[in-house]
Amino acid sequence: MKYEAYKSRLTTIADIGYSIAMLGWDQETYMPEKGAGFRAQQIATLSGIVHEKFTDKEFGKLLKKLDDSPKKLSEKQRRNVTQTLKDYKRQKKYTREFVELLSKTTSECFQSWQKARHENSFKQYAPHLTKMIALKRKEADILGYKKHPYDALLDQYEPGARVADLDVLFKDVRSQLVGFVKKIAAAKQNEDKFMYLHYPKDKQWNFGIELLEQMHYDFKAGRQDISAHPFTTSFSSKDVRVTTRIAEDNLKSMIWSCIHEGGHGLYEQGLPESEYGLPSGEAISLGIHESQSRLWENMVGRGLPYWKANYKKLQKYYPGNLNKVTVEQFYKAVNIVTPSLIRTEADELTYHFHILIRYEIEKALMEGKLEVKDLPEYWNAKYKEYLGIKVPSDAKGVLQDIHWSHGSLGYFPTYSLGSFYAAQFYATAKKEIKGLEDKIESGNMLPLLEWLREKIHRHGKYYSAEELCKKVTGEKLNFNHFMNYAKDKYSTLYNIKTL
Amino acid sequence: MKYEAYKSRLTTIADIGYSIAMLGWDQETYMPEKGAGFRAQQIATLSGIVHEKFTDKEFGKLLKKLDDSPKKLSEKQRRNVTQTLKDYKRQKKYTREFVELLSKTTSECFQSWQKARHENSFKQYAPHLTKMIALKRKEADILGYKKHPYDALLDQYEPGARVADLDVLFKDVRSQLVGFVKKIAAAKQNEDKFMYLHYPKDKQWNFGIELLEQMHYDFKAGRQDISAHPFTTSFSSKDVRVTTRIAEDNLKSMIWSCIHEGGHGLYEQGLPESEYGLPSGEAISLGIHESQSRLWENMVGRGLPYWKANYKKLQKYYPGNLNKVTVEQFYKAVNIVTPSLIRTEADELTYHFHILIRYEIEKALMEGKLEVKDLPEYWNAKYKEYLGIKVPSDAKGVLQDIHWSHGSLGYFPTYSLGSFYAAQFYATAKKEIKGLEDKIESGNMLPLLEWLREKIHRHGKYYSAEELCKKVTGEKLNFNHFMNYAKDKYSTLYNIKTL
Repeated sequence: MKYEAYKSRLTTIADIGYSIAMLGWDQETYMPEKGAGFRAQQIATLSGIVHEKFTDKEFGKLLKKLDDSPKKLSEKQRRNVTQTLKDYKRQKKYTREFVELLSKTTSECFQSWQKARHENSFKQYAPHLTKMIALKRKEADILGYKKHPYDALLDQYEPGARVADLDVLFKDVRSQLVGFVKKIAAAKQNEDKFMYLHYPKDKQWNFGIELLEQMHYDFKAGRQDISAHPFTTSFSSKDVRVTTRIAEDNLKSMIWSCIHEGGHGLYEQGLPESEYGLPSGEAISLGIHESQSRLWENMVGRGLPYWKANYKKLQKYYPGNLNKVTVEQFYKAVNIVTPSLIRTEADELTYHFHILIRYEIEKALMEGKLEVKDLPEYWNAKYKEYLGIKVPSDAKGVLQDIHWSHGSLGYFPTYSLGSFYAAQFYATAKKEIKGLEDKIESGNMLPLLEWLREKIHRHGKYYSAEELCKKVTGEKLNFNHFMNYAKDKYSTLYNIKTL
Repeated sequence: MKYEAYKSRLTTIADIGYSIAMLGWDQETYMPEKGAGFRAQQIATLSGIVHEKFTDKEFGKLLKKLDDSPKKLSEKQRRNVTQTLKDYKRQKKYTREFVELLSKTTSECFQSWQKARHENSFKQYAPHLTKMIALKRKEADILGYKKHPYDALLDQYEPGARVADLDVLFKDVRSQLVGFVKKIAAAKQNEDKFMYLHYPKDKQWNFGIELLEQMHYDFKAGRQDISAHPFTTSFSSKDVRVTTRIAEDNLKSMIWSCIHEGGHGLYEQGLPESEYGLPSGEAISLGIHESQSRLWENMVGRGLPYWKANYKKLQKYYPGNLNKVTVEQFYKAVNIVTPSLIRTEADELTYHFHILIRYEIEKALMEGKLEVKDLPEYWNAKYKEYLGIKVPSDAKGVLQDIHWSHGSLGYFPTYSLGSFYAAQFYATAKKEIKGLEDKIESGNMLPLLEWLREKIHRHGKYYSAEELCKKVTGEKLNFNHFMNYAKDKYSTLYNIKTL
């Protein structure tokens, strides 16, 4: 049984891969500081074994044989094999020398970035980043592409994504969203000072757990812990870990990171257990993953029905801070739109300007039209142009994200794709689930979760992102859905007249 | 550089082995219940890779070559190679069939034990245990032995330990300790009711952390968490995890498990970082490991100087429960000696009767002189004989320990060996460290820790247990040291006249 042998190899690889994820989870949550050195070594060793097992020639032969006799396989099996063979071929393109050089450069670049950000000194980081960008251009050549070198990188995070399509999307962002945000800026502003009173930690934690329980996040197949940067990871669909952070002087920090990671976690918990290790048991892409977190965080978790369901509970935790704030005032405070410096703190509309800027920069870097040394100036000009704000320092500007120092070029666009998919999925869900927002308002999240399970989670990687989107919503990704969502919601919130 | 290749292989194996330990730690501390199935599979996969890498023929050839040209190696390198070659040869003795049969039997035997203990039904467990004992006798034959089949099993946990030596030790336990405990039983009994008042969890936790800090347990290279059964594990000497449990109606439960695991943890933190993965970076044996935990738990942690240092802190946590109890009364309560049913709850003297009984049983099972079906009767008779108590049920008798169901025959004696080594080491420490107990009384544990680091921890497995004992104390393991410790301490505590 060749397919069984294929499955068995992927299961072994998944066992090791998930062990790496476990080491990584502990690293971010509980590991004592002196453990870092050996931990990195242990992760590197296991990663090496995964690479060895995946790129093994005999496995390659097996994949090709399976791929050559598709009639013996079911449709799902065939798609699995095709997907794995694609990954195999990509992995085989890298020489050992290139992998080692990339690993070394990444490590140096990351260290340099940490120091540079701390010392607000782009100059010392520039030579490392220059090296990294050169390697990324090399990598695009190694991987190959049809039209644009950036396509090769995008494909790693968002299979099938291309500059040609993203250009259309971000053109829409520029032409539609920029203008709308200007209208918001001109309107009467809402108030959110009460969000920054003192909110003791333990109560925030308990409230977060309540929210996750309400979402039907399965705590018998997962848990939440604290980490510096919230994330979701999993060791099977039966053990999915989310983390959050709590700031006692900022109620916003915990609540929406908790809902966001909960959305990621629900996707992971909804992947089919029987497909462990196979593409059909994996998430489709970062964009689709992000659509699940953003749908819960924004479409649901920043909506009025959601807060009608949950605000009284929150008031009970903090009567002193919130008893005089109505749920409508709270809802307005949750949805304040205002240009800001830091991507991760941005509201759900201006967020996409942050991504747009990074997208334009990454494309230009890959085309060779922009040099690293000119990055800060370029960055600051873009922030002026799209967000209308002056960047006070590189630490709060071009040095704010970890991604480039990790070599993760092509990653940022998946954040916007996630939001746009989320709006499109949510628009369909509202059509297909009768009285969806009434149900949310009554605290019943199950119909939505079941819809997501049925339409998205259970399929794993069986469909591509594009296929899934068409299957679920009847059309390919279309920015209008996001724009309609934004206009509907924020026109009311800011009393803006739209057509 | 053949030695470098050897070291590199062992480093890789350690990286995987410590990853398994990480998966195991999480399993006992934070893993959600549904994660168990895939976790077991992930551990099995990594264990298989370790076995493969360690028993690889090419590695065997390398070991033999290194062992054949000892002149090229330093003494430490030579000892490392000899040790690894010994382990390699042992591993190679097992056929794949035997390993798989043992693994299958263990899994079934463990499940059957859990059920049998729960239902207080030895009968349903007996056939599984019978199979296990037969396999263990087979294993002894596979491994080989000179005098007694049990020697082959003992050697896995306590290299070099033999029935011939243990018979002498346990004869001493019978002839000296049994009589002394009878004298204690005849004396006026001390009072410990106040230990079982209500002791809220959080304060116990904080007090435990204080005790670990005082022992100089390095929290930057370790941490404490909660688990059902306290244990210590490590992922390098720079990341050592201890766990504890807290019972709100029993102050004894947390405190001494905390000090005990702290002792194990200090040993692991004291192993030389530069010898990662090598025998010279590992603990010598379970007995020596246990000597470190018991020395801290009993010689130090159940001593009057220790409580003179710490009792006021404890009173501050629980003034209502303890303000009327003097430190002397507390010390007496800490050291109540009384025969009991359950090994893990026994005092530091009668504990060894529990081990003696298990030792005699394991020996008889290995000799074929005792059959599994007769075990409960035999067990109960021994408890009557050595502890003078009637066993009310098999669940609280022969079914109480997990060890046999795991196939861990030969493990129990290391608990007693640990205590006896501990007494002997501590007697030497008192001679060599001026005013040791005055220092402890002032809360200064550093001189003792430094002595243990210098004499024991830093050597890893360079010496055998027997060599280390002679080097540190000037003689081989001698039960008199434990007996002297017991007589000194308990004659005072119970007002017993001894010669």
